[in-house]
Amino acid sequence: MQRADEGLAFLLRYENVAWYEDGKVRILDRRIYPVRTEYVTCTRHEEVAQAIADMVTQSGGPYTAAAMGMALAAYEARALEEDAYLAYMKKAAYTLSHARPTTVEKMKRVVERALGRLERELKNGTPLSGMPEKLKEDAVDSLNANYSRYDRLAMHLADKIPNGGTVMTQCFAETIIGTLLRECRKRGNEIKMICPETRPYYQGARLTASVACDMGFDTTVITDNMPAYTMKMKNVDIFTSAADVITMDGYVVNKVGTFQIALAARYWGIPYFTTGTPNAAHPNIDSVKIELRDPALVTESMGLKHTMEGVKGYYPAFDVTPPKLVDGIVTEKGILSPFNLKAYFELPDHTASELPC
Amino acid sequence: MQRADEGLAFLLRYENVAWYEDGKVRILDRRIYPVRTEYVTCTRHEEVAQAIADMVTQSGGPYTAAAMGMALAAYEARALEEDAYLAYMKKAAYTLSHARPTTVEKMKRVVERALGRLERELKNGTPLSGMPEKLKEDAVDSLNANYSRYDRLAMHLADKIPNGGTVMTQCFAETIIGTLLRECRKRGNEIKMICPETRPYYQGARLTASVACDMGFDTTVITDNMPAYTMKMKNVDIFTSAADVITMDGYVVNKVGTFQIALAARYWGIPYFTTGTPNAAHPNIDSVKIELRDPALVTESMGLKHTMEGVKGYYPAFDVTPPKLVDGIVTEKGILSPFNLKAYFELPDHTASELPC
Repeated sequence: MQRADEGLAFLLRYENVAWYEDGKVRILDRRIYPVRTEYVTCTRHEEVAQAIADMVTQSGGPYTAAAMGMALAAYEARALEEDAYLAYMKKAAYTLSHARPTTVEKMKRVVERALGRLERELKNGTPLSGMPEKLKEDAVDSLNANYSRYDRLAMHLADKIPNGGTVMTQCFAETIIGTLLRECRKRGNEIKMICPETRPYYQGARLTASVACDMGFDTTVITDNMPAYTMKMKNVDIFTSAADVITMDGYVVNKVGTFQIALAARYWGIPYFTTGTPNAAHPNIDSVKIELRDPALVTESMGLKHTMEGVKGYYPAFDVTPPKLVDGIVTEKGILSPFNLKAYFELPDHTASELPC
Repeated sequence: MQRADEGLAFLLRYENVAWYEDGKVRILDRRIYPVRTEYVTCTRHEEVAQAIADMVTQSGGPYTAAAMGMALAAYEARALEEDAYLAYMKKAAYTLSHARPTTVEKMKRVVERALGRLERELKNGTPLSGMPEKLKEDAVDSLNANYSRYDRLAMHLADKIPNGGTVMTQCFAETIIGTLLRECRKRGNEIKMICPETRPYYQGARLTASVACDMGFDTTVITDNMPAYTMKMKNVDIFTSAADVITMDGYVVNKVGTFQIALAARYWGIPYFTTGTPNAAHPNIDSVKIELRDPALVTESMGLKHTMEGVKGYYPAFDVTPPKLVDGIVTEKGILSPFNLKAYFELPDHTASELPC
């Protein structure tokens, strides 16, 4: 099985994202990594859906978990008759794709890809007992395609970082951070990374910083009130983040905090590059619903309550950065203006079969 | 002993800030309040200085702690000859005022006030055994003068808040927050408070929010990556913070994060009012030294490490907001332009004998 995750950090290797083997899916628990390295093991696809809902894995992880969950469902159903088998798989596809409300559309593409492969294999006469491995292979193929797409994206972003430059991130851009660092290393550019910690889940401190440190780069964590001042004091060269949604009118919906770091970058004249793919399902920002999560996560920290009884919390999971604060949308096809994102779909080389990530 | 702290929250009552009694100074441990209500008891003035350095008390607390620390030093030295006594007190004044680098100039005013009182009492023939109580009385007088000054300041700031308006804060503005809320209540203006939590010590979540909630106001905590987005979503009317230093050329040095919230406020057209007093000892921003604190406080949270071994931290305690982002410096004499702060010293009613706070 070809693998495109070589040379990347522990956290980005396929078997540490989500992995099907012998009737089980094993998912690295990103809620506690790197303090402890533990896996959640699922023996039913419903447990995979629950793990996604419980934030065991985040960022691109849920898409891989769902694809591996389909392999697990195929294992569970291996003794059924063909009609019941297909019904079972479709139900599993629904359960997995609906694990979290905001990502249903992107998740559907993952499970539908698996169902498509399943149907092709059935036509080819693949026995049901062989199906889990076929679906796992499909998940790996999809990961490979994504990783290679992000390799191309990383080349465009790496072009914008001066030699020995300093990069500020936000939250956890998953594979993109890994492929960016791999590309910089390949060019002999030992960049420095500054990662705001990203409350309330600390993905910046726990995930992004771990990936960069694990790959041997100079890595510094700051708290979320420090980006604007740190940009100046540490001579930050670029600010970059991924996006949960990039609307066709150029708005970037990403982990809350992105907007105010973009504002600070603009103040200092530091470019902000968003990585990702414009989403045709969102013609404009009005079509995006910002998820509000449990306020209790804000009135506590590290599982410890730190506010007086009676104090309320407010937890918008994402914020919105307007196109005028975005210097470029970095895609595998090159850097696009946020004011002309239809160009993405007009440019060649778009591989529609890849998983969203 | 007259007391100007009536009607304020638990946290702002004198005996919960720092209190000298019977050869001890008792300081509320603001690092853990309101999760636990505990006091640090100091039996030597050096322990008071250490408590200040260790952030047992913050914001205006250290100035009161230093004044009470002088009373404690007078207790320690009560059996010395007059020459040795004065030398001891001067050494104590130095130790207490130099507990933290950024605030040395303001601290000097506190300890010099105590030394001035001491000299007057010596001239009056007050016995050394009576000196601790005299210096404590002086500290309380100074607190009263401050609280009444902040009452006047609060009137000017309250004028800027619409009825039922929403106020965003940063860190903990100590007495000013209390007197502002007391003034709003007096006017029948039940304002809403939004408090960013203020990592790494969470003063916003633990102190400001507790004061507001304790006084019965609608209080919401957000994480430090949320102010810019929350301003818009919660219709914030004003942003206000205190300042550790306001330089004569209009720069505001305050808890790190202030600068990026001020940037966001400017973006949304929300006024930013800094409360405090211009500091004549700092003619310009170049004369201010920004304290860098232990990076380990950033690579952990709530005392729990959350980063991989090898990841570095960066912890500037303060940041710098330029005058062009400040809509007004609110003093007890009215709201001043950050571009003409010498007006503060030209206006009548300046009470030079008050402690900075």
